[in-house]
Amino acid sequence: MIEIIAKGTFKPNCVEIFKQLAHEMIVKTRQESGCVFYQLCRDASDPNTFVFVETWHDQAAIDAHNQSPHFTTIVPQLADLLAEPMEVKLYTIIE
Amino acid sequence: MIEIIAKGTFKPNCVEIFKQLAHEMIVKTRQESGCVFYQLCRDASDPNTFVFVETWHDQAAIDAHNQSPHFTTIVPQLADLLAEPMEVKLYTIIE
Repeated sequence: MIEIIAKGTFKPNCVEIFKQLAHEMIVKTRQESGCVFYQLCRDASDPNTFVFVETWHDQAAIDAHNQSPHFTTIVPQLADLLAEPMEVKLYTIIE
Repeated sequence: MIEIIAKGTFKPNCVEIFKQLAHEMIVKTRQESGCVFYQLCRDASDPNTFVFVETWHDQAAIDAHNQSPHFTTIVPQLADLLAEPMEVKLYTIIE
């Protein structure tokens, strides 16, 4: 399994739009067979910063997600809302 | 519920010692009643960097964890193994 932590800081006036788009992404992503876990969290000290905490079965599941209609439709829309580029980190699960 | 993502980069010759201490921390922390989820991950692009991905019922659960014998015994030992200070971030779970 592979863990992804994807962190984004959004322009203050774009946070509500982001949350709407994120909700659509979450609902559809959780339906993917390769998705084990997919959660959105908000930084307790910065209301404009969010992280997606994601667990995937394997790289093939991530590749399928990255090519899904919801990913390819929603992610480009997020780009305009960001205050700085997203930081996407991959991790292997130790235990 | 509260999410914690705690990131640490360790000295290369200290990684195996860290993993042993982390294992003890994980086994004992998962027994805490306020702990919902506690997982250790390794950065796929930097084998010396790890994150704990943690979910807690509430702040009282985190406070109890921080005062637990395993936390107060193990965390000071980790300090000597780190290449730089740990980064501990708290998040609220949106969905």
